[in-house]
Amino acid sequence: MWEESVAARIVLVADRLLTQNAQNTVYAPGAVAIVGNHIAAVGSPEDMPSGEVQPLPGHILLPGLVNTHTHSPMWLFRGLTEDVPRGAWLSERMRPLEQHMTSNDLASGALAGCLEMLLNGITTVADRYGHMDTVAAAVEASGLRAIVAHSLYDATADDGLERTRLLIERYGTDPARSRVTVALGPHATDTCGPDLLRRVRALSDRSGARVVIHLAQSAAEVEAVQARDGLTCAAYLDNVGLLAPDVIVAHATYLSPAEAQLAGEKGTAVAHCPSSNAKLEGRVALVGRLRTAGARVGLGTDAACCNNGMDLFEEMKLAGLLNKVAACDPAVFSTTDVLRMATIDGARALGLDEFIGSIEVGKRADIIALDMTGAHVQPWHDDAANLVYAARGSDVSAVWIDGKQLVRDGRPTRIDATAILAEATESAARLKHAIA
Amino acid sequence: MWEESVAARIVLVADRLLTQNAQNTVYAPGAVAIVGNHIAAVGSPEDMPSGEVQPLPGHILLPGLVNTHTHSPMWLFRGLTEDVPRGAWLSERMRPLEQHMTSNDLASGALAGCLEMLLNGITTVADRYGHMDTVAAAVEASGLRAIVAHSLYDATADDGLERTRLLIERYGTDPARSRVTVALGPHATDTCGPDLLRRVRALSDRSGARVVIHLAQSAAEVEAVQARDGLTCAAYLDNVGLLAPDVIVAHATYLSPAEAQLAGEKGTAVAHCPSSNAKLEGRVALVGRLRTAGARVGLGTDAACCNNGMDLFEEMKLAGLLNKVAACDPAVFSTTDVLRMATIDGARALGLDEFIGSIEVGKRADIIALDMTGAHVQPWHDDAANLVYAARGSDVSAVWIDGKQLVRDGRPTRIDATAILAEATESAARLKHAIA
Repeated sequence: MWEESVAARIVLVADRLLTQNAQNTVYAPGAVAIVGNHIAAVGSPEDMPSGEVQPLPGHILLPGLVNTHTHSPMWLFRGLTEDVPRGAWLSERMRPLEQHMTSNDLASGALAGCLEMLLNGITTVADRYGHMDTVAAAVEASGLRAIVAHSLYDATADDGLERTRLLIERYGTDPARSRVTVALGPHATDTCGPDLLRRVRALSDRSGARVVIHLAQSAAEVEAVQARDGLTCAAYLDNVGLLAPDVIVAHATYLSPAEAQLAGEKGTAVAHCPSSNAKLEGRVALVGRLRTAGARVGLGTDAACCNNGMDLFEEMKLAGLLNKVAACDPAVFSTTDVLRMATIDGARALGLDEFIGSIEVGKRADIIALDMTGAHVQPWHDDAANLVYAARGSDVSAVWIDGKQLVRDGRPTRIDATAILAEATESAARLKHAIA
Repeated sequence: MWEESVAARIVLVADRLLTQNAQNTVYAPGAVAIVGNHIAAVGSPEDMPSGEVQPLPGHILLPGLVNTHTHSPMWLFRGLTEDVPRGAWLSERMRPLEQHMTSNDLASGALAGCLEMLLNGITTVADRYGHMDTVAAAVEASGLRAIVAHSLYDATADDGLERTRLLIERYGTDPARSRVTVALGPHATDTCGPDLLRRVRALSDRSGARVVIHLAQSAAEVEAVQARDGLTCAAYLDNVGLLAPDVIVAHATYLSPAEAQLAGEKGTAVAHCPSSNAKLEGRVALVGRLRTAGARVGLGTDAACCNNGMDLFEEMKLAGLLNKVAACDPAVFSTTDVLRMATIDGARALGLDEFIGSIEVGKRADIIALDMTGAHVQPWHDDAANLVYAARGSDVSAVWIDGKQLVRDGRPTRIDATAILAEATESAARLKHAIA
């Protein structure tokens, strides 16, 4: 028995380890012991229990990064529409492309998107799209931890809610029991009227499922809600009970200061997507105000066709720089805060901080190892500064999720990258041709 | 004779080739023939003359990227001061660090900085710093093409000009004759009064050396020039004859619209450093106005301690996103324009477009090959979109400068990365300790 448990214990030993716990404890050198799917010990290498040691010289260990908002199948559309106003981007390109998507396209795109995220050190994702039964199966197969949501619209509300109920039957809503769980996914404040959102609130209360929704993503959305309900987007959500701690709003690009204050005071979670907001709207969300007012703010990559990648290292850099520009103040958005937004704050936003977001005993073993030796990250004077402003997704050389090693030496161990990319690029070529 | 010349000819064959010529011609597949230090043929593989073929499957060939502004030795200080106002950044950290620098630190930092640039596909750099004799030797040894400038200040004007004369004696000012050439480097409009700048103008006229200067980089600079001369920074430069086509101004962060118009109309060249401006000032320069008014605008990384890296792929993405945000318009700053800013427009800004910046017959063979197969750049629907918004410096797998292959499979061929990084990180650690 003893031997068996020793053999099952893996001890990762690296030059540095960032816990991202409440005290931001750093060990240098640092080690973490993994038993099964969870973290059994964290500290200096000499304090570790015995086990199979995996030395990681020249590496820093961090919690896996948390991507609070994306649409993985849209990997297929990267670069297909550039430098146009958002209306044209959505109506003239994305919607026509989506109309041609088959189940196979959805699955191959989602799997390729998950591959990209995994290689970039993202271990948890909040993923929302249509046909989520197909997409969720691909996300689960990738090995990522995920919250999945099927997009709900007024026009197809009954069908969407039925699909959501089936998803909940399959994956559940309890992150203690399942790596993939289900959230309710009303699309946005303009595409979802009060009736649908009240049904969402009720189903959320019954099922325990969180809610994910786009909020104030475009000027058109703001105008439509004003015209329909005579309300700001935030007031509208509040009216239907969806400015709340179990609701994750994505973007929040066009919230006014008063709306940001309200959303924060209600304890809403926010998926801040800096590069997508900049690229598709030329805007920076009021993230400082949201944080100060009490919102839990994580970072989201949005889809690969929005920004154009799914790399939280890049998103961290953009969060720092764009928010400094929005405030005309180089002293705001400290590297420490930004790094926490990509780890423990992202986990909090998704309601998963009991399980992930930091390297602490008892949490799930979602851990990444980043190569510190590149000419672009040396000298290594400052952990947070280097991770936020100098490191790249491609510096991630190893990834563990639920204690399983999914990336080794920068390559996936359990999924076939070549086959995934071949299939997905074929889908992408066919779809591009279909709307040409 | 025939056999010898065939043997000396190298033919690179890749899936795609972007010429960045006036018509933005693309070949897919594409090939380029190199003889000695220059490009002998460009086109489809079947149209190439015979030679030693180097197949580059899964790659795209581009002109080497042009970094119009940096301070390579400051590689040593990456991450040493984060999230503080610029005044504190400069006076409390950078200047004290610089006071402790030895010749060895300067050389090792410069070489490490050049290594970082080379691996990121930068083939030409405008580099300025103190002790430029030491720095220039390191830059030359790295194999990069460079314009080097010794920083000139009022307080040490005679010494600085004398050092500049010695540099010109050694490297000259003619890019047709030397891979490394010399520019005159007055530091900025506040630190250089009219007497020094008139001497610079005169020496430039005599020697043919271009002039590089920081312009309106900080609010303090703007105020100081107003107090000293009663002029805006741009008007001040114009008064001493330094708003001109042979002058490259860096940053231009605080130029007013009228100043930007004036600088553009005078044909001034501008080194736009988006990430540095955002990080140290919380600002975006009026690049759209400068371009429209006639300025030749290239991209600059600034130093590794400013932004915090020397990667023009990242700088392209930031130029696009930050300028969209500054204009509140997602349709501005097309990917095609941004890519040209990093290649041919950068070459124009430095006055080197006769020699570099595009893949055209007769130009120097400064070429990079970028791996198109990564999950973060696939599908490859759009060259410019993928290069500007999705690719990373680490996707560059091969680099040629003056026809010599300096990077192969992502590793330097002619300089010893391990030794360079070991020496430079030792310098960095000692300097950090010295001011602790």
